[in-house]
Amino acid sequence: MPAAHGYAAGMTGAATPAYRRLSVEERRGQLLDAAQGLFAHQAPEDVSLDDVAEAAGVSRPLVYRYFPGGKQQLYEAALRSSADALNHCFTEPPEGPPTERLGRVLDRYLAFVDEHDAGFSALLRGGSVAETSRTSAIVDEVRRAAAEQILVHLGVERPGPRLNMLVRTWIAAVEAASLIWLDEEKRPPAAELREWLVDHLVALLAASTASDEETARVVGRLLAQETPEGPVARLARRVIPVVGQAAHLL
Amino acid sequence: MPAAHGYAAGMTGAATPAYRRLSVEERRGQLLDAAQGLFAHQAPEDVSLDDVAEAAGVSRPLVYRYFPGGKQQLYEAALRSSADALNHCFTEPPEGPPTERLGRVLDRYLAFVDEHDAGFSALLRGGSVAETSRTSAIVDEVRRAAAEQILVHLGVERPGPRLNMLVRTWIAAVEAASLIWLDEEKRPPAAELREWLVDHLVALLAASTASDEETARVVGRLLAQETPEGPVARLARRVIPVVGQAAHLL
Repeated sequence: MPAAHGYAAGMTGAATPAYRRLSVEERRGQLLDAAQGLFAHQAPEDVSLDDVAEAAGVSRPLVYRYFPGGKQQLYEAALRSSADALNHCFTEPPEGPPTERLGRVLDRYLAFVDEHDAGFSALLRGGSVAETSRTSAIVDEVRRAAAEQILVHLGVERPGPRLNMLVRTWIAAVEAASLIWLDEEKRPPAAELREWLVDHLVALLAASTASDEETARVVGRLLAQETPEGPVARLARRVIPVVGQAAHLL
Repeated sequence: MPAAHGYAAGMTGAATPAYRRLSVEERRGQLLDAAQGLFAHQAPEDVSLDDVAEAAGVSRPLVYRYFPGGKQQLYEAALRSSADALNHCFTEPPEGPPTERLGRVLDRYLAFVDEHDAGFSALLRGGSVAETSRTSAIVDEVRRAAAEQILVHLGVERPGPRLNMLVRTWIAAVEAASLIWLDEEKRPPAAELREWLVDHLVALLAASTASDEETARVVGRLLAQETPEGPVARLARRVIPVVGQAAHLL
């Protein structure tokens, strides 16, 4: 790398010595960080290669040298790196009541959605010119990782068809709720949305117990680990009066 | 229209008189039907303009005369016509228990998914080259129409944020379940999937009653219209033992 390419490093912050020569990896990381920051808050359509060069404080040809595929390559690399960050959010030690673990995962997930608002919307709403079979594959991989993590916490290794559909359907519901949440200017507060999404999964599990033995076993194990202060107990206390209202049907 | 363009009409079936001259509207409809049949069972990538011409029994230039935008224009017109058919499925007279009305709507919806299997998957999975902001807008319009119809049957004109999120989230879950259903070679049978999806909405409504007054009112009205043989009663009977299992939490 010719030293001249380090000229703009000083723009990234007062603490960075001017003209410091970045290694290939450092430079690549710097460009990717700049791209990711832009793609997080804007639709890919609205981000130009000049914007990326400007945000990184480098010239447009330098961006092309590292990402010869231009914006599309940068977009896919930024998405790849977001996918890794999301997969990292999903990791939670298998300790304590499962619904509380799920709540912590959802808190991290909603913080991610908050930090990647416009980019998250553009990606999941479809119709973006930057969307390809490769970007769809990355999104699907994240969904699969999320489903696998949930199944780990439910103590299931190879789910039957009903439980598999239940978990994947709930993940789709979480995505939809996240998009609506962004549309509604992040109302209700993230903690309230998280609580509702946990209730949603518990309600789905409860509704599927009688028609699916595997789900019944999962719910049995889940109930044994929950506490009177936890989400399942709170939900049960709230649903009992509703079931009471349905007494005329029983 | 020069008469020569009617030459291939005889190929569409023995009952059609050969060389019958189709009106502009008839011809357009014929081409669109042919395109729709292909797009229903294949990803747009896998449908060529030659395929459409062949299915309609006409020449490729004739297809271009009616659809100068070529395959993309045909795809969007086919999608528009599918969206209208779907919106038509959603219409259900406001009579009888709401969950039974919902079951009938879902039966029609699942029949539609069954008849448009590969096209439905390709459209909703994203990453298709035929996907544009226009096709996304058509899909969104269908989702909006579905949400409006559900709210009509729940007796709500302008839903508050929680009920709005609940209905839209459930619609996303139905879409996800439909895609998984197609992946799983249409297992379980459509009637079983429909029953599970109705349970899913009822469970969601029940889980939201305590945190949202509007949902509580909706559930109250819903329960008053249900019968002991209906989906809500069936679900309530199945959930009661689960709540019993949670007695140690209460």
